[in-house]
Amino acid sequence: MGSLDASLVCDLPPFEHMARQDIAALLERARSIRVEKGAAVFGQDEAAHSFFLLLDGHVRVVRVTPDGEQVIARYISSGELMGIAQALGRSTYPASAIAAVDCVVLAWPGAMWTEVVSRYPGFASNTYKTVGSRLQDAQDRIVEMATERVEQRVANAVLKLAAQTGRRTEEGILIDLPISRQDISEMTGTTLHTVSRLMSAWEAAGWVKSGRQRIVVVEGHKLMLLAGGAK
Amino acid sequence: MGSLDASLVCDLPPFEHMARQDIAALLERARSIRVEKGAAVFGQDEAAHSFFLLLDGHVRVVRVTPDGEQVIARYISSGELMGIAQALGRSTYPASAIAAVDCVVLAWPGAMWTEVVSRYPGFASNTYKTVGSRLQDAQDRIVEMATERVEQRVANAVLKLAAQTGRRTEEGILIDLPISRQDISEMTGTTLHTVSRLMSAWEAAGWVKSGRQRIVVVEGHKLMLLAGGAK
Repeated sequence: MGSLDASLVCDLPPFEHMARQDIAALLERARSIRVEKGAAVFGQDEAAHSFFLLLDGHVRVVRVTPDGEQVIARYISSGELMGIAQALGRSTYPASAIAAVDCVVLAWPGAMWTEVVSRYPGFASNTYKTVGSRLQDAQDRIVEMATERVEQRVANAVLKLAAQTGRRTEEGILIDLPISRQDISEMTGTTLHTVSRLMSAWEAAGWVKSGRQRIVVVEGHKLMLLAGGAK
Repeated sequence: MGSLDASLVCDLPPFEHMARQDIAALLERARSIRVEKGAAVFGQDEAAHSFFLLLDGHVRVVRVTPDGEQVIARYISSGELMGIAQALGRSTYPASAIAAVDCVVLAWPGAMWTEVVSRYPGFASNTYKTVGSRLQDAQDRIVEMATERVEQRVANAVLKLAAQTGRRTEEGILIDLPISRQDISEMTGTTLHTVSRLMSAWEAAGWVKSGRQRIVVVEGHKLMLLAGGAK
């Protein structure tokens, strides 16, 4: 990893509170891997051979049920750790990570985990914060699924993606990754039919624009009102 | 905490891999608190003043939405840590903890957290395992809610409670805490009406027996088949 300078990554959350030379030492032991759009960084139920940092791109974390149904657990953005099974006390990956666009990831051997967290307490506590906020997100989503109407859930999913990946354009906030109506349905536990019906209605009202694998949020405040439960 | 001997708690998961004298030192700094059935150990959005170990009893972890709807996030059994906001990088409790029966808890000041996890790595890694398995549970539940039929979810919730708190009796496996149909509906994001309809059907088929705040699983394998998706 001689080509990657510590100064380029020291602002990323996992490396905050770490000394520059410690970051450099960690980077030296990482492999840099290009992952093509659609390929898996790691697979559900595989032995957790490595842990990863997403340097560039977006990754979809997907779980498949025994019946073959697919649920999108979350999207990972650049600068986030992933595949940190060791931090969860697991020896296998609980889900698959699929590149939503062409990605660059850093990979460390899973066997390094214990040494890394004990040697760099700052890295450890940032990791556990990440796990904590993912637990919080998961609990939020359970509450959403238990109590909210379908249209609230779909509005929330679109707003979350816009907040996480949005890029300001002339039309509005573009969700900056290829996203289909099927993806939204797998994020919200809703049928494709329902997502299509809602998106069409929002498009007709001028709140969003959408195309193939493309969503632009035009009137975010309308979606926010809807997500908050306004009828 | 002079009255509590380290040998009584050294088998509990949070204390595994800790030396006996370290456990004793930790216990000395804990307060023991009795919490009456129905009272709160801590409240959602309160400053996280303490972290807790449930010594005896069962605790319901509840989240209330801005609209006042209630969702049961999980049940905590004796021997588990709770209110560990610090491990999640939070300064407030994300949910309320309500005693489901009369309980005894140990409480430590939240300000001790950082010192405890750095001084006792065994305690820290057990804690993070706990957080990891709660994240896993939450993700499982999201997948369930997104893909399973209501009857599968309700069967799963009953089986989970039986596995967590069940006591073998002549009638079958008694869920050993007061549990109402309303509780099951708040665990599964289902209406009370649906839970009642399912429980009545299962009772008529001889799979469960139920009374006021009481459920006995008689034919667990039938519920397992149902939970697994058999029609």
